[in-house]
Amino acid sequence: MQNYKAPLKDIQFLLHEVLEYDSLKNCYDQELLDSELCDSVLEECAKFTESVLSPLNKVGDQQGSKLIDGKVKTAEGFKQAYQQFINGGWNGLISSPDYGGQGLPIMLSAATEEMWHAANMSLTLCPLLTRGAIEAIEFAASKELKVKFLPKMIQGTWTGTMNLTEPQAGSDLSAIKTKAIKESNHYRIYGQKIYITYGDHDFTDNIVHLVLARLPDAPPGIKGISLFLVPKYLVNDDGSLGSLNDIKTVSIEHKLGIHASPTCVLSYGDKEGAIGYLIGEENRGIEIMFIMMNAARFSVGVQGYAIAEMAYQAALSYTKERKQGFPIGSKEPLPILYHPDVAQSLLGLKLKINACRHLSYYAAKMLDLRRSSDDSEKEYSSQRSDLLTPIVKAFCTEIGNEICYESIQLFGGMGFIEETGVAQYYRDARITTIYEGTTGIQANDLLGRKILRDEGKAIRLLFTEIENTLIEAKKITELAKIALIIDEALCDARASCEHLISNTTLYNKYSHAKDLLMLLGWLITGWLSLNESLVCVSKKSISDNKKEFYSQKLRGLTYYVIQFVPQCGAFKEAIVNNLILKDYSDIDQILGE
Amino acid sequence: MQNYKAPLKDIQFLLHEVLEYDSLKNCYDQELLDSELCDSVLEECAKFTESVLSPLNKVGDQQGSKLIDGKVKTAEGFKQAYQQFINGGWNGLISSPDYGGQGLPIMLSAATEEMWHAANMSLTLCPLLTRGAIEAIEFAASKELKVKFLPKMIQGTWTGTMNLTEPQAGSDLSAIKTKAIKESNHYRIYGQKIYITYGDHDFTDNIVHLVLARLPDAPPGIKGISLFLVPKYLVNDDGSLGSLNDIKTVSIEHKLGIHASPTCVLSYGDKEGAIGYLIGEENRGIEIMFIMMNAARFSVGVQGYAIAEMAYQAALSYTKERKQGFPIGSKEPLPILYHPDVAQSLLGLKLKINACRHLSYYAAKMLDLRRSSDDSEKEYSSQRSDLLTPIVKAFCTEIGNEICYESIQLFGGMGFIEETGVAQYYRDARITTIYEGTTGIQANDLLGRKILRDEGKAIRLLFTEIENTLIEAKKITELAKIALIIDEALCDARASCEHLISNTTLYNKYSHAKDLLMLLGWLITGWLSLNESLVCVSKKSISDNKKEFYSQKLRGLTYYVIQFVPQCGAFKEAIVNNLILKDYSDIDQILGE
Repeated sequence: MQNYKAPLKDIQFLLHEVLEYDSLKNCYDQELLDSELCDSVLEECAKFTESVLSPLNKVGDQQGSKLIDGKVKTAEGFKQAYQQFINGGWNGLISSPDYGGQGLPIMLSAATEEMWHAANMSLTLCPLLTRGAIEAIEFAASKELKVKFLPKMIQGTWTGTMNLTEPQAGSDLSAIKTKAIKESNHYRIYGQKIYITYGDHDFTDNIVHLVLARLPDAPPGIKGISLFLVPKYLVNDDGSLGSLNDIKTVSIEHKLGIHASPTCVLSYGDKEGAIGYLIGEENRGIEIMFIMMNAARFSVGVQGYAIAEMAYQAALSYTKERKQGFPIGSKEPLPILYHPDVAQSLLGLKLKINACRHLSYYAAKMLDLRRSSDDSEKEYSSQRSDLLTPIVKAFCTEIGNEICYESIQLFGGMGFIEETGVAQYYRDARITTIYEGTTGIQANDLLGRKILRDEGKAIRLLFTEIENTLIEAKKITELAKIALIIDEALCDARASCEHLISNTTLYNKYSHAKDLLMLLGWLITGWLSLNESLVCVSKKSISDNKKEFYSQKLRGLTYYVIQFVPQCGAFKEAIVNNLILKDYSDIDQILGE
Repeated sequence: MQNYKAPLKDIQFLLHEVLEYDSLKNCYDQELLDSELCDSVLEECAKFTESVLSPLNKVGDQQGSKLIDGKVKTAEGFKQAYQQFINGGWNGLISSPDYGGQGLPIMLSAATEEMWHAANMSLTLCPLLTRGAIEAIEFAASKELKVKFLPKMIQGTWTGTMNLTEPQAGSDLSAIKTKAIKESNHYRIYGQKIYITYGDHDFTDNIVHLVLARLPDAPPGIKGISLFLVPKYLVNDDGSLGSLNDIKTVSIEHKLGIHASPTCVLSYGDKEGAIGYLIGEENRGIEIMFIMMNAARFSVGVQGYAIAEMAYQAALSYTKERKQGFPIGSKEPLPILYHPDVAQSLLGLKLKINACRHLSYYAAKMLDLRRSSDDSEKEYSSQRSDLLTPIVKAFCTEIGNEICYESIQLFGGMGFIEETGVAQYYRDARITTIYEGTTGIQANDLLGRKILRDEGKAIRLLFTEIENTLIEAKKITELAKIALIIDEALCDARASCEHLISNTTLYNKYSHAKDLLMLLGWLITGWLSLNESLVCVSKKSISDNKKEFYSQKLRGLTYYVIQFVPQCGAFKEAIVNNLILKDYSDIDQILGE
């Protein structure tokens, strides 16, 4: 079993040298942006994830969580590791200092989250969900609820969950049936929720469920749904725990992966009704839930490439050990890493991870900039982060799965044996393109809400920025070739967007939403690679001790652009030419079944 | 759980109307080519796989095979189903009538194998391996061995295995250490073999292991390996079973998928030495083993898309049932099949399966034509089938895995729950790109032995044939668009091959072997789609009762070409431009670790 090793050099290069972490000065106090503070957080996180979280990862897979007498028991060592996690202060890294958080930038947090999930995705799903719940409460709950719940949740002594899905209401939340009935200063909740990650567990004394439900007189559909805070144990006014709420853990799912993370079916109100407190206004639950969702979507994008990093590390280590045959040009038997097909594959994996990392940190920077005191910076970054969130979620998870798939391949037959451990990453990763909105949902969000709604304004602004980078890059001889490839990809993206905005039927537009999302993913990561290359070119001529580092980076980035970015052309062809499905009823005819 | 339904209409269309099953007249007796016989075999096979094999598939996954007191016990119902399998005569479909086989064409057999593996890949792996062993014995064993072993193996009352791999010798068989020592008219075998599929089981009384081993005085490397027949029980001259041979089942692997198929570690000669019989000449074992391997590689290619067909059927059925939201253009809630992204995805899956099926049947036809009484047909088909085998194996399994991945996606959260069953196909399929030679090995075989060795002669002949089809297709208005796309793909393929044959370093050639294999896979399936389209165009104008069938096929084929074939351009760009890795030692520098 491979232990995780945080790729600190790569992370720090992106944060400091490429994305200029210290440039967030309109958003955070200067002392929070100190680069030494940043590095020491990263180093501590590396230490913690490598030594505490990673060694438990396989145990979690093998033992899983169990439901015993109506209570979830997590795998051996998980409870203790979670305790260390909150003792280390990791839970409240970006939360509001008003309630005990550390208020650090999302850029830094993204890097720490990457390490969490790479080391132990099943365990760190718990704080991922807690963070989403904290954000929704921070954003919309009453002062009273905030004071009562936020300090414990930010500390991590209580965890949070998201209760959206019901058997008949998955991607379509308008079908939610869970009922809420007003009773003095609280509500009574009745209904069944499914797919509740860490819906029950033994990490902490209390769990704070955020639950979507419908009031008796609510309008039908999405505009009649309210959000409630429903604690596992009621909380007295002095903060101590009161009686058990009327919530039952009915069952936990037997899943393909993330075995250690309990996915619960929760039943609310089997007896007297579960007591819940309204968050925000009645019937405005969906808007608030989207606060949680967007935070969680970003984090799941990070998960996608984080678990891929772990799989890559395992594959790299195996290919460095396993000897088979004589690589071309070698007169002695060498590890398989030196065979051209294996080397090519590993290089591709490493650079795809790097590209997803860059995309995620860049998106995190845009999320940070939404706090800017400068209005234009604020507006610009809000628009950009809205555009990027579905791409981060979908692209990084799709590519992450590809990488886990290919990592098994690099192990050959050993990859298929569970003992090796790499199959776990492959199984675990599979959920990331599904939960918090499938790739299809992300693609529809991107096309509908982020491109069609403003008739392409936000995306055209991005295209212009890419064009400007290209003008700069084309002046530099060693970047001319990749600039040309990105230029072509930009043309493909423009043609595709214009086609989808102005031509073709509504049904056909959405038929190609995923093609467009992937095209933009390759284009944007190509562009970010070019930005990264520009930094390398300018620094390698003036740096002595890191000259080799920059040269190596530059070769890798060039590889990425040449090998992968030309795919944009194929997506464009499909988008522009493929108008086979005429309308929704057409699929029956063409499938012929 | 979805039960398998054999797609007979699609299979029959390809066999009869497109690939002209009855045109094998120089290879088989006329009565074997009777189309009614062919259809009745297909229909019987459909019935058997749907009613007997498919219902056991999930049981096999859940129970797996177990090693109890040194003996493998297979899952409930498997032994009985295997008995029905051999009683139905399925085992000897293509084997020589001299030893009780039915001598039917490989084209027909490919279609039946597809149904087997779609319905229950874990069970039918057993006859897949037996068939490979039969072919090696038919090809190279002495008359005495043939008479003693072939009738039972063809009947299926004894099964066969392939014993190649040892811990230190996987893809590189030259590292084999298992010893064989001559002793009167047999040999004694000593050594450990791993990854032996159905190395032990309870289906039959006896198991015939084909084992690679090295004689004491053998030359080093690949030219010093011999092939031995080593039965689990020795066989007396009257055909009755004698004493247990010195073979021990040390353990079985805990795998990601195909749980029901026991993957064994076998130890030969722990005591007095296992008795084995030489097949063919000493030190010529690898050549004979490649007979088995090539048969098995073709069959694994079929497995790849067969399991994908099962996953697709499950996804289609789920998307027809599951209702979420209002598809664009519909005023009522409808199943998710009618959402554009879901419809688009399903259509892509169906057509990729169709393309892989066509590729496999076409390759099967070439395998059949090697028996032709016409020498030029014989030579042509040998060359073509050599070229196609690595593409069938690698392309159909890579695409098959993609399809299983996407089928989970179509289930949303339910896909991640093991109960649904679709996760099993995803896990099972994962081995297909690995065993019988990884995708990397196939790509190296294609590039080195099938393209570089004859300096492109065989591949150029294929390109000329594609060109001729294009000339014909361009005359037909409704095919003009897809002909244009295939024409571009052909240019990409030619440029890529010429580049790899004549330019660039040997190391760089092999760096792009997989890119080339995938490019050729998309081009050839595009070309075959065009052939299929030509049939549809000509038939739909003269057929009344099947007009709609041809039109629907034509729309689908057009979709395939437009949506997927343009990928060839991206592979070509990578092949022609990406010369980042200079030689084998370069990977260390560029990974920077």
